[in-house]
Amino acid sequence: MTLLDETPDTRYLQLADTLAEAIRRGTLQPGDRLPSVRRCAQTHRVSINTVVSAYRTLEDRGLIEARPQSGFYVRSTLPALKMASAPSGRIEPPADDVLALIDTVFAAQQNPAFTNIALACPQTSDFYPGGKLGRMLSSQLRRQPGLIGQYPLPPGSLRLRQQIARRSMTLGMLLEPGDVVLTHGCMEALQLALRVTTKPGDCVGLESPTYFYLLPLLASLGLKALEIPTDPQLGLSLDALELLLNEKRLNAVIAMPTVQNPLGCTMPLAAKKRLARLMNDHQVPLIEDGLYAEIQFGGALSPAVKAFDRDGWVLFCSSFTKTLAPDFRVGWICGGRFHEALRKLKAVSSMSESQLLSETLATFLESGGYDHHLRNLRKRYAAQVDEARALIARHFPRGTLATQPAGGFVFWVEFPPGVDSVALFHQLLEEQICLTPGTLYSPSGRYRNALRLSCCYPFNARYTQALARLGARACEMSGLPPGIAQDG
Amino acid sequence: MTLLDETPDTRYLQLADTLAEAIRRGTLQPGDRLPSVRRCAQTHRVSINTVVSAYRTLEDRGLIEARPQSGFYVRSTLPALKMASAPSGRIEPPADDVLALIDTVFAAQQNPAFTNIALACPQTSDFYPGGKLGRMLSSQLRRQPGLIGQYPLPPGSLRLRQQIARRSMTLGMLLEPGDVVLTHGCMEALQLALRVTTKPGDCVGLESPTYFYLLPLLASLGLKALEIPTDPQLGLSLDALELLLNEKRLNAVIAMPTVQNPLGCTMPLAAKKRLARLMNDHQVPLIEDGLYAEIQFGGALSPAVKAFDRDGWVLFCSSFTKTLAPDFRVGWICGGRFHEALRKLKAVSSMSESQLLSETLATFLESGGYDHHLRNLRKRYAAQVDEARALIARHFPRGTLATQPAGGFVFWVEFPPGVDSVALFHQLLEEQICLTPGTLYSPSGRYRNALRLSCCYPFNARYTQALARLGARACEMSGLPPGIAQDG
Repeated sequence: MTLLDETPDTRYLQLADTLAEAIRRGTLQPGDRLPSVRRCAQTHRVSINTVVSAYRTLEDRGLIEARPQSGFYVRSTLPALKMASAPSGRIEPPADDVLALIDTVFAAQQNPAFTNIALACPQTSDFYPGGKLGRMLSSQLRRQPGLIGQYPLPPGSLRLRQQIARRSMTLGMLLEPGDVVLTHGCMEALQLALRVTTKPGDCVGLESPTYFYLLPLLASLGLKALEIPTDPQLGLSLDALELLLNEKRLNAVIAMPTVQNPLGCTMPLAAKKRLARLMNDHQVPLIEDGLYAEIQFGGALSPAVKAFDRDGWVLFCSSFTKTLAPDFRVGWICGGRFHEALRKLKAVSSMSESQLLSETLATFLESGGYDHHLRNLRKRYAAQVDEARALIARHFPRGTLATQPAGGFVFWVEFPPGVDSVALFHQLLEEQICLTPGTLYSPSGRYRNALRLSCCYPFNARYTQALARLGARACEMSGLPPGIAQDG
Repeated sequence: MTLLDETPDTRYLQLADTLAEAIRRGTLQPGDRLPSVRRCAQTHRVSINTVVSAYRTLEDRGLIEARPQSGFYVRSTLPALKMASAPSGRIEPPADDVLALIDTVFAAQQNPAFTNIALACPQTSDFYPGGKLGRMLSSQLRRQPGLIGQYPLPPGSLRLRQQIARRSMTLGMLLEPGDVVLTHGCMEALQLALRVTTKPGDCVGLESPTYFYLLPLLASLGLKALEIPTDPQLGLSLDALELLLNEKRLNAVIAMPTVQNPLGCTMPLAAKKRLARLMNDHQVPLIEDGLYAEIQFGGALSPAVKAFDRDGWVLFCSSFTKTLAPDFRVGWICGGRFHEALRKLKAVSSMSESQLLSETLATFLESGGYDHHLRNLRKRYAAQVDEARALIARHFPRGTLATQPAGGFVFWVEFPPGVDSVALFHQLLEEQICLTPGTLYSPSGRYRNALRLSCCYPFNARYTQALARLGARACEMSGLPPGIAQDG
């Protein structure tokens, strides 16, 4: 450490600008490691504090990122995606053949011969504290040897619900344990939320593109879907939503305002507040899918829309399946004004969650290790996303656009004209590489030139080769050379 | 062992008749221990083989029972229940206030101050091999340390589905692993089965009395209920069912042909065959709830109706929650002709089951310990049911009728006129004793003079005192003395 012999407020900004310029000019390429703090201080004849502040500024600007035990790296820059054409506003019956395609994807995911670069089902087991959870689980069984032999009744583990309520403050919510209903993953939370807020024949507003499993879920409940224009960076178009609400065309809305799947975007704070106000004013339920809300890459967490819910019209769904223990399948929902109905519906739908798994999660959360784990998880996924984006910039055809996710591990890629992602899907399946074409993410089958990529797989040679193969095939199909112009 | 110096085929029957007469006359009282085999052989001057055969004959007649490491005991005899009045055949909207009452019951169950003698939620943790399952679970985690960090995809553990398929033969079914969909307990299996076979507004045939949670489940799906007369010993009235099927008034039927809840009865084999034929002929789905089918008290297991299913109209639901690992909440369904639709609906409803829990169950089943465990479980529950029935015979008002369950741990009690089980429920709640009044078990709220008793609780002083208190209250209410005449 050096003495604070300088005025860091000006020097660090100068240094940051110099480095930003080097990144913009390509002197520092995406994926390049920045000099160590000490080395940089020597080179630029500034104090270590100044370099640390400069690096932090660049991190805040999204230009570089810290990787644990390794240093600072230049993040990839890909041309940003603009909202393409707004969906038509036509009510679409959810696509029937979506499930057949998803089946193929799931089967491929479970075939060790296949490389999956698309599903959001973490196989990065070393990213999750399985060892620690396993030990806590064993110790739970030692403390309560009869636990497995006891029938768990709703509402389930109070300790876990207490922890969920306590942690909800990090997303701006003020929940009580009694507000929380434990579910079998987030999928059941969404399913119950839809069943409790709609009846067959109703129409549900969806982001476009949206999480693909919502489409067969809506179909199974006899619900219609209406796509709402969604900006790849700003999320749901609230003007469009307001118009639809004014016309009373929506009985419920499902959205991921924070780290949207598949776009990866988070709505600006003001938009979240407006969204909450709109739903409250129109008394239409918003089912907020907060599955990735704790895996935000930015410094401070953007709060949930639920945080601004005045009259209980927002139902917040989440789960530990992407953040802590994928295998446990323990999720939860806070149903607002629908809480009582939800609580009852859960019990008659699948009764309760395993006390053993719930109490183990509670122990982990009580231990205080969750925040530390989340910090690591965010960094590791951010690094993988960035590496994937760097590979895309190198291998995908010129003119490809991609979103820069605000968290999670998926993002959205749009190919230049002439690339058909359904054809790519079938081609690459023959090479034992598994994609999810863009058509899956819309009830009207749009986004044929797009696809979602997922970085929740080990970032090994197989994965990177699969991305390169996808790029090569897309280049062939479009007749365009690889390499995305850095004009973003 | 003695030499076979007698003709046991006649002597053992004579001895059995002598002992049966002693039981009938009350020389041997319910709960009395029979003399040891050796002692009995000396007394009656017959060989040990003869005594063993005689005891087995009495066991087959339901008069005595073997208790492990203890000997043979006289079973209680209670007057058998006849089918009261047949339900009206009116379509009933499922009772709305049922859930409020069940809520009270669930809350009481979880309050340690309360004694529950009614719910079918095992708290007899020493009846289940929790220690062994816990060790297998830990060993699973040692073999696959990354398991908790991996997202489980449908269709889930192949090993578990193989074991389920292999074991299905014990109930006469010939399933393949690919026929089995894992679910979150039997409750989710029933919920999915209903969603896949019906649409809102449809009418579902139910046994009367029936499992109480079916009523709010039907209501949540917009389904109507039609009660089908059900004999306390023979189960579902097939003549009534056939009439309703002929009139095309049923879109699906839910039944428990083996160890019915709450009656405890198992349909005769010929009736099961006829039931399968009826459903196939009329092409109406039968949702067969086989939750207790592996806890049959008799020697050979009565097969599932599914065993006689010709064209796939029977959906068989079951779970390990009552037989092996209550806390794991792993159930399953074999959907027959609805399999594909079910498989898809499960995935969009709650995705998949924990691989850790599923593989642990598979390991237990593969180890071969399940049959041994089931034999013990049946004996222990049979003994508890019998002790409870003996207490009822002593404490409940004259004229009380009760079913003799063919398995499981619940049975049905009908009070003489003047006893109101809803009033009893409220009275005993003040004494911190929790009942489930008979009205819960019917969409039309009949059975106000009946209730279900459950023997899945530790058979301690608290439990027996609670039964005695219930008896005393019922005697007060009816003005009848305790003690049931042995006229059954």
